[in-house]
Amino acid sequence: MTAYRNIAQQLASLIDQRVLSAGDRLPSVRRASRSHRVNPGTVLRAYRDLEAQGVIESRPRSGYYVRRTVPRRTSRGGRKSAPSIARPVDVGDLMVELVAAMRRPHLISLGLDILNPDLLPGEDLRRAAVRAARRSSAAGIIRGLTPGDPELRRLIALRYLDSGAAVGEDEMLIVSGGLEGVILCLRAVTKPGDMIAIETPNAWPQLDAISGMGLAVREIPTDPTQGVDLAALEEEFRAGSVRAYVTTPTFQNPLGFTMADENKRLLAKLAARYKIPVIENDRAGELYFDGPAPRPIKAFDRSGYVLHCGSFATWLAPANKIGWVAAGRYRRAVAKTKILLALNTSAANQAVMIQYLAHERLECHLRRLRAGLALRCEAMVEAMAREFPAGYRVRKPSGGFVLWVELPRYVDSLKLYRLALAKGVSIAPGPMFSAHSEYRNCLRLNFGYASIQEIRQGIHTLAQLIGRASA
Amino acid sequence: MTAYRNIAQQLASLIDQRVLSAGDRLPSVRRASRSHRVNPGTVLRAYRDLEAQGVIESRPRSGYYVRRTVPRRTSRGGRKSAPSIARPVDVGDLMVELVAAMRRPHLISLGLDILNPDLLPGEDLRRAAVRAARRSSAAGIIRGLTPGDPELRRLIALRYLDSGAAVGEDEMLIVSGGLEGVILCLRAVTKPGDMIAIETPNAWPQLDAISGMGLAVREIPTDPTQGVDLAALEEEFRAGSVRAYVTTPTFQNPLGFTMADENKRLLAKLAARYKIPVIENDRAGELYFDGPAPRPIKAFDRSGYVLHCGSFATWLAPANKIGWVAAGRYRRAVAKTKILLALNTSAANQAVMIQYLAHERLECHLRRLRAGLALRCEAMVEAMAREFPAGYRVRKPSGGFVLWVELPRYVDSLKLYRLALAKGVSIAPGPMFSAHSEYRNCLRLNFGYASIQEIRQGIHTLAQLIGRASA
Repeated sequence: MTAYRNIAQQLASLIDQRVLSAGDRLPSVRRASRSHRVNPGTVLRAYRDLEAQGVIESRPRSGYYVRRTVPRRTSRGGRKSAPSIARPVDVGDLMVELVAAMRRPHLISLGLDILNPDLLPGEDLRRAAVRAARRSSAAGIIRGLTPGDPELRRLIALRYLDSGAAVGEDEMLIVSGGLEGVILCLRAVTKPGDMIAIETPNAWPQLDAISGMGLAVREIPTDPTQGVDLAALEEEFRAGSVRAYVTTPTFQNPLGFTMADENKRLLAKLAARYKIPVIENDRAGELYFDGPAPRPIKAFDRSGYVLHCGSFATWLAPANKIGWVAAGRYRRAVAKTKILLALNTSAANQAVMIQYLAHERLECHLRRLRAGLALRCEAMVEAMAREFPAGYRVRKPSGGFVLWVELPRYVDSLKLYRLALAKGVSIAPGPMFSAHSEYRNCLRLNFGYASIQEIRQGIHTLAQLIGRASA
Repeated sequence: MTAYRNIAQQLASLIDQRVLSAGDRLPSVRRASRSHRVNPGTVLRAYRDLEAQGVIESRPRSGYYVRRTVPRRTSRGGRKSAPSIARPVDVGDLMVELVAAMRRPHLISLGLDILNPDLLPGEDLRRAAVRAARRSSAAGIIRGLTPGDPELRRLIALRYLDSGAAVGEDEMLIVSGGLEGVILCLRAVTKPGDMIAIETPNAWPQLDAISGMGLAVREIPTDPTQGVDLAALEEEFRAGSVRAYVTTPTFQNPLGFTMADENKRLLAKLAARYKIPVIENDRAGELYFDGPAPRPIKAFDRSGYVLHCGSFATWLAPANKIGWVAAGRYRRAVAKTKILLALNTSAANQAVMIQYLAHERLECHLRRLRAGLALRCEAMVEAMAREFPAGYRVRKPSGGFVLWVELPRYVDSLKLYRLALAKGVSIAPGPMFSAHSEYRNCLRLNFGYASIQEIRQGIHTLAQLIGRASA
C-alpha cells in the first residue's frame, strides 16, 4: 500500500472506532509527518483524501477536524446492539460473558458474584476519597510500598480484635483484592507441579488461578452444609500428598455453608500438627445475617500456619480493590511474592481506605448491608418455593450473598443459562464451579445484586425456562 | 494456658505492636466476652491483670483504655532502628531488601527502578483525583469492568496517534500496572511448560513472573547497544521452539539500549510471518531525552501479532497503578485472562487517569521530566568518569532512567551491594538480571530517584568501595 493510503486508512479506522470523535482536531501535518516518518506532502494527500470522502474537514488557519456528522462506513454499530450470544468453548468464556452482560441496561444479574454498588456506602466512600485525594503526597507512595501503609495495616489489624484472632500489624500485608491475596499465598507456599487440597465445588477464578500456577488439585469430599470432610483432609495431610489447603470456611462460594467452630478449631490444629499451611479465603465472613458473627479459622490459630485473606472490595469498596493477608509465619514469603508479582498495591486506594476506616461508619454500613441481604435472601428462597417445579433443593445460607440450587437431574444448567440470558436474566451454571465440568444440574444464584422485585421476576423467568432446559 | 491469660497476652501483644495505641479504647467487656466466647468475668480478669501491669487503665463509666505512657515490655523498638542487613538466599530477597530500604530516611536510592515522585506532577494529579473522587458513582464501577472504562480506553488509544501506530479503543485493555500487562499477555498466549524467548540480561520481576507460570526461557544473544540478534531470534521462530517473545525494545531494562527502527520493523514482520506473538513491554518509551521520539514495534505491526504494554505507573502516577495493553489479535484472550486473574482494574484509579488525561497537561509534564532525566543522567555519567577506577564501561542511554555499568572482572557486585547499602547507598547488582546469576561484575543504576547532589555523593561512595568488593 502506498504511504498516504496507509495513513488515510489508519485515521479512518480510528474515526470509525470513535477513538477520534466528531469535532476532534487531527494532528498537524507537520507533527503527523514526523510521527509517520514521511514528508508533509504525503500526510497532506492522506488528509485531502479523507476530506474528499467527507470524513474530515479543514478549517482555515486551524487544521483538520473530524466532521460533526461522520458518514458510517460500516454497519459495525448495528452489530453491537443486536443480542449476540457466543457459544462458550470453556468456562472462562462464561466468566467473560457474565462480565460483559453487566453492561446490558435491563439485565437481572443473578450470575456474577458481586454486590450491587447501591448497597454500599457511596456517600461516605466519596467523602473519604475526596479527603484522601486532597492529602495525597509523594511520601504516601513510599509509605504504601509493600507490605503496605503502616496506618492501614494497623487499622485492619484492629478489626481482628472482635473475631478473637490476635493479628499484629507486622503480620499484615496489603494486596489488590481478595483473589490476589489467595494467589500470593499459594505462590509463597508452593511451586509449580505441587498438589494442593481444595473444596469442591469451588469458585472458578480460584480454580483457574490454581491451574495457571501449574498446581495439581486434590478435591476433598465436601458436605454442602458442614464443609469438607476433615478426616479425609487429615489423611492427605498425614500422607504428605498436599502442600497446602485452600478453603472458604465461612459462607463458602458457591455452596454457602459455614464450618462449625469446633471444626475450624480442629482444622487449625491439623495445620499446626502436620505443618501444612491453610489458606483461608474469607471474603464474605462479615456478611452474617442469621446468627452470631462467625469466627475465622485464624481465630483458632496459635502456630501461624493459617494465612487469612480478606478484602474490602467484596463488601465495601469495589472501586478501590483493597484486600489484605494476615499470613502468620509465612508473612515474609508472601510479602516477597507480592513485591515480585506487582511491586506494591495502589497507594491512592490505600489512602482512601485509611480515611474511610478512621472517620466513617463501617459498622453502621455492615449492619445495614446484612439486613438488606437477609431480606433479599428471604425473597429469593420464597420466590423459588412459589415458582420452581418440585424436585429442586436449596439451602438458605446464614450469610454471604450467593446460594446453591440443585435442580432435578434432567436439567442442564448450561442450557438454562443460555435461555435465561436471552430473556435478560444471568445465572452461574454449575459446571463453572468444577475442574471437571460436574454439577450440570446445579446453579449458583447471587441475591446481592438485583433488587427484590428483580429477584422475583428473575426467579419467575427461570421457573418458566427450567422445563425447556432438559439435558 | 487459662482463658484469661490467653486474652491478656493477646491484648498485650497487640499493644506492643501498636495495633492498639495509647489512648485507644478496648472492646467493652460484654463485646469481648462474645468475641472470645468466654464469660464476662474471664475478660474482666484479663483486663484487671493488664491494668495491674500498668498497660491499660480503667476510666469510670467509660471503659478500659491503653495507657498514655505504655511501659515498653521488650526491646523490639531498638532492633528496628539498628542497621540490620540480612544475607540474601536468592534474588527475590534482594528485591525485598531494596523495597524495604526505600523507607530509610537518608538512603541514596540508585537501586529500585522507580522514579522519584517529586519528578511527577503532584499538584495536577491531586486536582484530577479530587475531581474524580467528587464524581465517583456506582455506575463508574460497572463502566470500569474489564476491558476497562471506554473513555479511558479512548483517551489512551488517541495517544498512539503520535507514534504512528493505529490502535483502536476495541483493542485496548486497562490493567493494574505494566507488569500485570506482560503477565496477562503471557498467560493468554502460552501454557505451563511452554518455552518463550527473552533478552538477556532482563528485569528480575519479569524473569520471576515467567518462571512462576511454569514457562521455560530461551535467552537470545543480546547486544548492549543494538538489542537482540534478530537472526538468532528468527532461527527460534522458524524452528517453532518458542511460543512467544517478550521484549523491551526501547530503553531496555537494565541495558538501556533502543532497537533501531528498521529492526523493529523487521521484528514486526517476523512475528507476522511465523505467527508468533511479540509482547512489547514499553514502560519507558515516553522518556526519550536525547534524540527524537522512539517508535514502538507496534507502530510497524500490520497483522496484530504485537501486544503492546504501557503504564502510567512508571512515569506519571505510581499511586494509581494504571497500565494498558493493546493486544492486537489477542485482545479477547488477554481480556479473558484479566477477568479470571483479577476480575477488573480499580475503577477509582481509572477515573483519576480519565480526569488527568482529559484536563491536565501531560505533554508539559513529559517535557519537564525528560529534561530532568537528561540532567541526572549526565551528572551520573560525569561523576563516574571523575571517580571510578579505570576499566569500567558505561553506555549513556538516550532515554529511560537506568544505566548499566560493567565493572572490571575482579569486582563482585553482590559484595559491592552489601558494602554500599551499609553506607546508605542502594544499587541493583548484576545477578538480579539473570536467570543464572550471571553479570557478577555489573550493576544497574537508577538516575531517576536521587537528586543530582545525591547522585554525585552516591557515585563517590561507590567509587571508594569498588576496591574492597573484589570477588
